[in-house]
Parts: sequence; C-alpha cells; structure tokens
Amino acid sequence: MLHFDSDYMEGAHPEVMKRLIETNLEQTPGYGTDIYTAKAKDNILKACGIDGGKVYFMVGGTQTNTTVIDGLLRRHEGVLATTTSHINVHEAGAIEATGHKVLTLPQHDGKICAEEVEKYITDFYRDDTFEHMVAPGMVYISHPTELGTLYTLEELEELSRVCRKAKVPLYLDGARLGYGLAVENTDVTIKDIARLCDVFYIGGTKVGALFGEAVVTSRPELLPHFMPLIKQHGALLAKGRLLGIQFETLFTDNLYIKIAHHGIQMAMNIKEAFLSKGYSLYIDSPTNQQFFVLPNDILDRLAEVASFEMWGPKGEYETPVRFVTSWATKENDIEALINAIPTIESTLDL
Amino acid sequence: MLHFDSDYMEGAHPEVMKRLIETNLEQTPGYGTDIYTAKAKDNILKACGIDGGKVYFMVGGTQTNTTVIDGLLRRHEGVLATTTSHINVHEAGAIEATGHKVLTLPQHDGKICAEEVEKYITDFYRDDTFEHMVAPGMVYISHPTELGTLYTLEELEELSRVCRKAKVPLYLDGARLGYGLAVENTDVTIKDIARLCDVFYIGGTKVGALFGEAVVTSRPELLPHFMPLIKQHGALLAKGRLLGIQFETLFTDNLYIKIAHHGIQMAMNIKEAFLSKGYSLYIDSPTNQQFFVLPNDILDRLAEVASFEMWGPKGEYETPVRFVTSWATKENDIEALINAIPTIESTLDL
Amino acid sequence: MLHFDSDYMEGAHPEVMKRLIETNLEQTPGYGTDIYTAKAKDNILKACGIDGGKVYFMVGGTQTNTTVIDGLLRRHEGVLATTTSHINVHEAGAIEATGHKVLTLPQHDGKICAEEVEKYITDFYRDDTFEHMVAPGMVYISHPTELGTLYTLEELEELSRVCRKAKVPLYLDGARLGYGLAVENTDVTIKDIARLCDVFYIGGTKVGALFGEAVVTSRPELLPHFMPLIKQHGALLAKGRLLGIQFETLFTDNLYIKIAHHGIQMAMNIKEAFLSKGYSLYIDSPTNQQFFVLPNDILDRLAEVASFEMWGPKGEYETPVRFVTSWATKENDIEALINAIPTIESTLDL
Amino acid sequence: MLHFDSDYMEGAHPEVMKRLIETNLEQTPGYGTDIYTAKAKDNILKACGIDGGKVYFMVGGTQTNTTVIDGLLRRHEGVLATTTSHINVHEAGAIEATGHKVLTLPQHDGKICAEEVEKYITDFYRDDTFEHMVAPGMVYISHPTELGTLYTLEELEELSRVCRKAKVPLYLDGARLGYGLAVENTDVTIKDIARLCDVFYIGGTKVGALFGEAVVTSRPELLPHFMPLIKQHGALLAKGRLLGIQFETLFTDNLYIKIAHHGIQMAMNIKEAFLSKGYSLYIDSPTNQQFFVLPNDILDRLAEVASFEMWGPKGEYETPVRFVTSWATKENDIEALINAIPTIESTLDL
Repeated sequence: MLHFDSDYMEGAHPEVMKRLIETNLEQTPGYGTDIYTAKAKDNILKACGIDGGKVYFMVGGTQTNTTVIDGLLRRHEGVLATTTSHINVHEAGAIEATGHKVLTLPQHDGKICAEEVEKYITDFYRDDTFEHMVAPGMVYISHPTELGTLYTLEELEELSRVCRKAKVPLYLDGARLGYGLAVENTDVTIKDIARLCDVFYIGGTKVGALFGEAVVTSRPELLPHFMPLIKQHGALLAKGRLLGIQFETLFTDNLYIKIAHHGIQMAMNIKEAFLSKGYSLYIDSPTNQQFFVLPNDILDRLAEVASFEMWGPKGEYETPVRFVTSWATKENDIEALINAIPTIESTLDL
Repeated sequence: MLHFDSDYMEGAHPEVMKRLIETNLEQTPGYGTDIYTAKAKDNILKACGIDGGKVYFMVGGTQTNTTVIDGLLRRHEGVLATTTSHINVHEAGAIEATGHKVLTLPQHDGKICAEEVEKYITDFYRDDTFEHMVAPGMVYISHPTELGTLYTLEELEELSRVCRKAKVPLYLDGARLGYGLAVENTDVTIKDIARLCDVFYIGGTKVGALFGEAVVTSRPELLPHFMPLIKQHGALLAKGRLLGIQFETLFTDNLYIKIAHHGIQMAMNIKEAFLSKGYSLYIDSPTNQQFFVLPNDILDRLAEVASFEMWGPKGEYETPVRFVTSWATKENDIEALINAIPTIESTLDL
Repeated sequence: MLHFDSDYMEGAHPEVMKRLIETNLEQTPGYGTDIYTAKAKDNILKACGIDGGKVYFMVGGTQTNTTVIDGLLRRHEGVLATTTSHINVHEAGAIEATGHKVLTLPQHDGKICAEEVEKYITDFYRDDTFEHMVAPGMVYISHPTELGTLYTLEELEELSRVCRKAKVPLYLDGARLGYGLAVENTDVTIKDIARLCDVFYIGGTKVGALFGEAVVTSRPELLPHFMPLIKQHGALLAKGRLLGIQFETLFTDNLYIKIAHHGIQMAMNIKEAFLSKGYSLYIDSPTNQQFFVLPNDILDRLAEVASFEMWGPKGEYETPVRFVTSWATKENDIEALINAIPTIESTLDL
Repeated sequence: MLHFDSDYMEGAHPEVMKRLIETNLEQTPGYGTDIYTAKAKDNILKACGIDGGKVYFMVGGTQTNTTVIDGLLRRHEGVLATTTSHINVHEAGAIEATGHKVLTLPQHDGKICAEEVEKYITDFYRDDTFEHMVAPGMVYISHPTELGTLYTLEELEELSRVCRKAKVPLYLDGARLGYGLAVENTDVTIKDIARLCDVFYIGGTKVGALFGEAVVTSRPELLPHFMPLIKQHGALLAKGRLLGIQFETLFTDNLYIKIAHHGIQMAMNIKEAFLSKGYSLYIDSPTNQQFFVLPNDILDRLAEVASFEMWGPKGEYETPVRFVTSWATKENDIEALINAIPTIESTLDL
C-alpha cells in the first residue's frame, strides 16, 4: 500500500536522527537552557534576518497556536481567522478552551483578505456596542494555508500594513512553512515573513523533525512572560535540547529548505499526472498538498493501492480528495501511484 | 563538572534509541493509531494486570497532569493534593488555567494522609455552605513523591478505600514511577498501583525515554471523550508512534524496571557516602532523589566539581540540597563525587 | 424626546415594585432559600405544566446563558447556534471565556433550521477526524429571536425531535419570552416550550422585572451540581428573595403575559403606521422589536424627536432601524411617534 | 425567631427604596450610561478624594472579585491572599474558573502580613524556577476581614508600600466596608483606602442596598478595556441605573456611614452582653460580625429563640458561633436576644 495520507507518517530526516544519536548521552540542563537550543535560535534568527528577535520551541502545532494566541491576546480579545483555518476547525476547541473566540472571515482559496480584515476592524469600532462584543485582537493566517495555497508577497504586505495600522498583531502558522518557501515561483521568503508578521512559527514536525515547532518573533515585547505561559500550557519540553538539536540541524546548510524541495517535486509529479490523465483540480495548490476531484469508481479503485484523504463527504458521483507528499516521499512510490491512475476521457458526462 | 541536577539530562536509553532508528523511515498513520502504540498499550496493560483498561500517551508531565485532572473533574470540583505537590507548586498554574482549584492538605514526608482526606471530605459536606465551596472531586498523589519518598502498600490501600468510599477518583503521578518500583524494600508493585488507583501515569521522560508519559486507567468510564480533550490540551502528538515505540521498548523484558534499578543503586551509593562521612539527611528518601543538609562552606566547595540543586533558600550556616541520579548515571561520576565529599567530624557546633 | 431604544429603559412593573416595598424589611435567609423563591418556582412550574422540573433564578441574560451552557456542556463540546445569535455576537465572548466554542449555522429569519442541525451532527461523526473537532453538545435558540421572529410549533417540534434523537439538549433563550407568548397568532405556548426544550429561561429584565431570569428545566439531571456552578459564575444573588418576589408576582394571575400583550399592541401600532405611510419592513417581526428601512433624510428627521437604534452601518441612501416597545411603553408616546413619521409616496426612486 | 445569620436578610434602606420608587418609570439608557450612575460615580470619587479615578458598578461580591482579579492579572499570575479569604474559601472556585491561582499566606486575625507578602515576592524571584511557578501578580485583602477584624492605618500603609515597591497592585474587598469605616476607634478612612489601595470595592449589598458593589480605582490604567470584561463575566446589569440610584443615595449626606454606625452599635451591644455574662470571645471583632464560644447546651437553648451561624463543626463541649448585625437590625431584637442569654458562672470546668 502506498501512503499519501499526511506529511507526518515517517520519523525524522536521517541527518536529524544522526545528531540525536550523537548527542544522546550528553548531559545538558533542561527546558531549553542548553547550548544546542541556543545555537538553533541563533541559526534561525540569522535565517530570518532578525536582530533583537526571540525564538521559542514547542512540540506540536495545536500547542503552539494555543500558547502563542493566548500570549498575544488580552482576555476580551479574539483572533480573526478564516472559516477553514486550522484553529477554527481542527484543534478541538483549544483556542476557546483558553477563553478566546475565533472570529471568522470568509476564505478565498484558503486565504484571508486584507480588505475584509480592515473592514471588520473599522466596523467593529463604529459605535459603542463594541463593548458587548469580542474585540479583534490579532490576525491568524497559515502559509501554506490548510488548502495548500500561498500568499503572494503583495498580499502579505497589504495584510501587514492593515494589521500594523490597526495595532493588531499578525501571526502566521507555518506548520508547513518549508513547503511554502520551497515552491519555485513563490515571491515570499522567510525574511519577508519575519519582517511582515509579528509572530510566526516554523513547522518542524512536517518538515524533517520528529516533532517540534519554532516560534519566531521580531517583537518579543508582544509576548511578555512567555516562559511561564509555555509551562502553563504544558508546552515546555523537559529535555528541551531535543528541539534545539533538531532545529540546529535543520537550519544548518539550508537543510530545511532543501528537503522541502523534494516534497514539492513529488507533489508536482502527482499533480501533473492527474492533470495529464484528464482529472480536475479541486484546489490549485503549488505545495505538498494536492487536491483533485475523483469520480467515485476511480476513487474506489485507487484506494486499493494507495491511502489518501477524502476531502469532505463522499459525493453522489465524484468526491474531492487530498494527496500529501513530504521530504520523505519516495520516488518509487510516486511512480507506482502514477501508474495506478487510469486515464479518463472526459468528466463532462458526470 | 559532574551533574546531579535532575533525571532528565540525557536523551533516551540506547535500546530505545535503537528502536527509534530502526523504525525511523517506516510509514504509520498519526495520532497513536499505529501498531507500535497498540503493542505498547498491550504490554503496559499486561504489566499492570488490567483487563478492560485503557492507556493514553502524552509527551510531558505537566501536560499529562493537566489533561487527566481536567478530564476527571466536573467544573465545580477541585483536586485534593499536598502543599508540596508538583501540581500545586511547579506547573505554573496549569491546573487553575483549566479552571480547577488545587485544594491543599498538609504533607507528611511528602505524602497525603488518608485520614485527613477522609476528614476533609466529611467536613466539606457537613452543612449547606458546601455549595459555595470547591468540591473535592479527586485526590492527587505522586509516587515517588516530590520529596523522594514512597507510600507503603498499607497507606495506598487505606487511601484507595477512603477515595472509593467517597466516590472520589484517586490519581497517581508516576513521573518517577520506575524509581519507586525499583526500590528493594518497597512492598508496592505496579499491579498494586493499577488496582488501587483509578488513574495513574507511568513516567517515561525520567526513566529511559526521550519524552513520554503513559496514562493508565482501569476505569476508562472516568475519562469519557478523552481523545478530543487530549487534542484540546495540545497533548496529542502527531507522530504518536514515537511514544508507542519508546514504551513498547521500555515494557519489553522488564527494561523499565531494570534501568531504574541502576538509578536507585547510584542514589544509594551517594546516600551511604554522605552518611558515612558525617552529614545528615534533610529527607530520608529511598529513591533517586537524595536530600542532605550541607554546611555552606562544603556546599560551595562541592559546587565547584558538581552541579546539584539547593532545596530552598541558602541558610545562614547550612543549606538543604538535592542530588538526583537516573538510569544514565555513570558509576565513574558517582565515584568522583564521593571522592570530592570531605569527611566532617561533627555538625554539633554549627 | 421619545425613546424606543430598548425594552429595558424603565424599572419594574408597578405591581412588582409594590411587592418589593411591602416585603422590604422582612427577614429571609439568603441565596434563594426563602419562601418567596419557593412560591415563585412553584408558580412557574405550574404555568409550564412540568412535574419534577426545577427552576433556578439568575440576574441577567448573559450570565444565565453562560452558566446554563457551561452546565450543559462537557469540556470537549460546543454549542450550535445561528451566526446572529446573542451568544455569538453580543456577549463579549462570555461563552468562550468558559472554554466552549459557539458552532455557527446560518440564520433563516433569525432562526436555526432543524434539518441543518441534523446534517451538522450527522456529518460531524462521519469519520474519525471528529476527535480533532469540537463536538456539538447542545443547540441554542432564542424565542423571540434577536430579529424579533418566532418559531412555529411545527419548527420547534422538529428541532426537538432532531435534538432528542441525537441526544443533544435543546436550550431556549427567552430573554423576551413574554413578548413571544403574547403574540396573537403564535401557536407556541409556554407549555410547548417546557415540553420541547430541555432547558429554557423566562426573561424578567425585559418583561416587568427590575432584573432577573428564570431558568426552567424538565430534566434537572442535565444540570447536576448546578448551585455551585451558579456561584462560581458570580450569578448567585445574596438577597435571592428579590428574584423570588418579582417572579412570584409576574406569575400570579398571568401578569407576565398580560403586560407583554401591551408591549405587542404598541409594537403593532408602530408597524401599521410605518407600513401605511409607505415604508418597507427590514424584517417582518410579530413581536416588540420592529425593523424598518428608512431613507436617510427621514431617519435624521425622526432622530430629532425619538431615539431608536440603527441596525447596521448607515447606508448610502437608506438605513435599517429598530424600534422597541415594552410593557411600559406609553400610548401617548406611540401617538407622538406616529405623528412624527412623514408619509412617503414611494421609495422606488432610491 | 430572632435572626442574626447574616447582614443580607432584609431588602434596602428605606431611603434607597424611596428613590427606586420615585424613578421607577423614568426612561434611561442601559448599562450604566444614565445620569444617576454618573452622579453616583461623582459622589463616590468625591468621598474618596480621588481625582482622575474611575468607578464601576457590579451586582454582587463574588462577581466583583472575579472580574476585578481577572482584569488585574495576566495569564501567568495569581493573587496573594490569606487562607481564610473569601476568594479562597467561599466563592466556589470562581477565581480559578477564570484561570488564576489563589496563592495563600497565613492569616493573622484574618489579616495578611506585609512582611510575609514581601518575603513571598522576594523568595519567588530568588532563582530561575520561578518560571515554573505562578507569579504573585496582586494582593487581595478584605476590610473588615472575613473574621470581622480591621487593618490599622499603619498596617495598610506598610502593605501598600510593599506592594508598590514590588509593582503588585493591592486590591481591597470591601463587602462590609461601611461597617469597617463606622467603627469608632478605627484610624482608617475611605480616603486612606483610596490612597493606599490600587483598586477596592465599596459593598452595597450588606450596607443599605438591595444589591450592588462599587469598584473604585485611582489607577484606571490597571484595568484597561474593563467594560467588555465586565460584560464577559456576566456582570453588566442591563438596567444599570438601579446601581446608580442606590449608590447615589448611599453617598448623599453620608448615608452609607450613618446606617453602618447603627449596625456597629447593635453589634457592640451583643458583644458587651456576652462578655458581661461570662462568655469568651472566639475572635475579638470591632465590627458587625461577633464571634463567641458557646457551651453546647447554651448553644442549643439559644438556637430555639435566635438563628445564628456555627463557626466550624460542633465541638465536644463548646462551639464557636457568629452573630451578625446590620443597618437593619432592630433594637428590640437585640434586647430580646440579650435577655435570652443566660449568665454563666465560669467556663473553667469545661
């Protein structure tokens, strides 16, 4: 069976594992006060081109989102996000569990629209009823989005401008950031993100690490007393050096981007194959998540050789599906998958 | 420099690392639905002698305590614990952050007293004012305690009897459980714990794993809908098989207890050395945390060759300190430490 | 200046004030353990036709919604409600502040659609991803809705059927319940509501009381340990008898409905006047909130003699507005308002 | 039956009721934006001698404490209070329900000790472990305390000095403030409190109002965005003018203190009677709560003519009890009580 369910089906990149083994019996103090963590922070800040910034490591994405959002917001504030955002749909109410409302805006190819953010904030303060409502205290975006799409530099700059004008921090969830940065045609670099977002995180779990996410901020004053908050959220890893070692490795010799490139190439191969064989895209994604519409009989046939995700309930005739690749996807598996996809003449008669 | 600061200064036991490497590039589904996790659960339930129980894996201790306690309590309830308990002192208010009060009782060598628990619950329901107070909804203990001490089987049985009579779940924090079970004279087995506690966790982070804690319950009905709660608490590891692989290894051929034995032997060597050289115990602990009272000049001298923890503010003449060993402590380091401890004639003139 | 801003601009109905004065210096025990509260509960349960039900009194609407919803839900659950529901928009995030997500469905004339509720719940449990999402744990409706509209008996019965089939409690926010029950053509009685909803509240603040809301449930087992939760939410009034006295009075000789009838008649007079003078309805409401579309020049002119609420941002040519009446609205004021409304020929050329 | 159970057994002072009746059918805007509320705030700020301060009204004590404490603290902070403080014992975990820990210090006649506060804060920041603990973010005191006692001016000044030095706000719960200020020998005025505390509240519920507490702060910047937080806590009264009218009346012609004086006189009469008849004080209180130790047979006999509270579980031979008076206590009732107290020769043989 071939597996394209998700980008966290393997362990870590061999280079990362190698460093974990080499350092395994060394003794270091806990909670990220070790030298590996210091070095990892340094490497990341350099890659981001940030002076005076800060980096915090946590274990997983939901944990990171919850802790950062709780750190950025005051009690009466909520977070603006699209209806399809991970925090709104797939974190089991973690944001609300810390007392904050997710204020939803429509998604456009998975993205939030700067103009709609601006209008929301302006309308909000229109009259005195705002004191009975949840104030928009920050904006959450993901890049790549949950639908695999990417912001353009222009879109990010406009969003950043709107947020800074309204004094509302902009936070970017980079669970799959590597795959976004490794796309050939993107005009967004990690330095752009570091410059335009107030806080963002670099996803490790899906891009080469066993686990781990690196929160980066160029404005540490937005997250005062963040260490006890990390602890309070159960997000402070005892053997913090495990995060340091992994991120030091990933941010040495550009490994993080290099391995993401592979994931993108594998995804593009799948995309090309489906398109050339007559299928339609469900969403046009340039990253490692690919979405197609499959006639149900073909879906069933493919499901015998490969695992992938249905993207919504099964339709009457056809169903949207998602195939995910990663740094670890094997070329052989891609070939086998492509061979298993039947060519269709036309979908017009569905 | 020799290090006796904590029991989480190294990575994982070599056997555990070996399995992580061997399985590194295998593909498994996420969130603990893999075969390694299934096997680990099976091994643990067998070791505990539980039929019909359940096991849940999480990453760290604070996260585990918070999620379990939040799962066991209703909104109007709090958790009874000693003043020195980890949840009351060193979890940055994680329990309260989920809305629950830690109701404190005095500690006796770090332990809670069954009779005092019973009196607290009886007094609580004495008159109608209880509706204005936080109901005792569960009891939290740690074994070994934060002071390195152990419950006797009789104490545990009495506590269990009191809790079951009052229909209040008993939860045991086993962050250092291995070290408790490996003590030669203890009459408490893991089967006793599984039988007498309603929920407990087996600590991996401090006993051979890179990270990870295994929550075990013989009464799964006490934790209904626990998976979404784990997710909500940010405690659901994407690559769940990492926890499964580690615990499967630790619970194969009794590895968990074997390696804990080593930690205990090392601790006993330190204890014997300090005692024979004329020092007094601050707390008489049979486990891998050892507490002594050091004259300040000797403390300063020892601190030049070894790191250890001051257990409270520095006193005028003498100060309590803590030395911690683990499965990874090297015999050479123990020898070197012992050699560095000067013999004192008497502490009478302090 | 005439005032049609809201239905809480005056104190209490004179009959209610009379009873508060008569009993003012009597001594009673606190927290609702007095005889007036007992009598009020009895009167309400009789009016509702409930045997074995329970009544709880609280001070205000947001407080009541938050406490009830927190009482009904488990930690991993959220509440289904329309996008326009009071809990989603105008309670400053009170529901989220207790850790629960408001799961939104579209509104249809302010109402939730039973079929959409059923589909939401069915889809939710479609596959295993539900453990990563917020479970729909209850349904919230308001009657009258925030837009002044009413459920029909058929709609309520269908909603109740869907909820009971899914074992999801149905909760009705009756902040303006009196005005809903007093509408001539409604086929929904308070007994229907008591029978079809699992929990609901009878609004006092807007219907004759100084303040106060009466939570009624025919299934008290859904709100176990509710007294300490009320206290924890700061919703337990020390001089609880104030709530008892007011509701006893309102539920004696049908006073609650009688005075609501007056509010409805006043509202119908306004509606008729605007319609006959050529204006259009913004929403067709049969209750004490009336919504019209006013050309901006007429809006400005009317605003000189009467206060009312703009229902959304001011439009380019015309703006929706809301006029509210109550048990206390004076016929003279209605006449004066009607006289001030100019007749318009046509709005076609806008 | 005579009643000395609590100081909230009657309605409001007749002067307050008179004003509520006179204004009952006036129309005012909601949520405290009316002229009565403005006037009340003005009167209170004048009485407190505060320029540039702010006043907020809420309904009850638990609600007020929870909202203020949640407003003052950041997420990682807790509130220092005595073990006997109302927030620690009798608010059903309301503080914890908003995510904050109550950090307890010993009580000394119900009071917190400035020196112990200072030591707690100093010790807290002693080493880096503080990031794993709940930071002391404010100090809570009550005046009178839960045991009827009063701080001296010197004690308050010392506490204020310690708090300001540590930049930790000092908050005073004045649920019974009137009774504290009306004590003959106290050297603490309301102006002292306003000067030395950062935030405090003036209790209305127990001192002449139907309900209502007035939060006063000379440093409004400590409670930014407080209105939405009040709403979020369900503490924003729709008909806010009810609070305004009551407090305007109580703070006109010194009514608040005058009526409290009566309560104190009644309490002193009871105290004198018990003492002169040979009983011992359980606590020596100068305010409207009086605590005695009663032999059980006498307790039983008195309980036939008067209601009062047992202060703890019934002892083997004798039991502490509490008698409470208020502005509404009738002189006749005091006389009747005193007549019912038997003289005892001596308690030596108990």
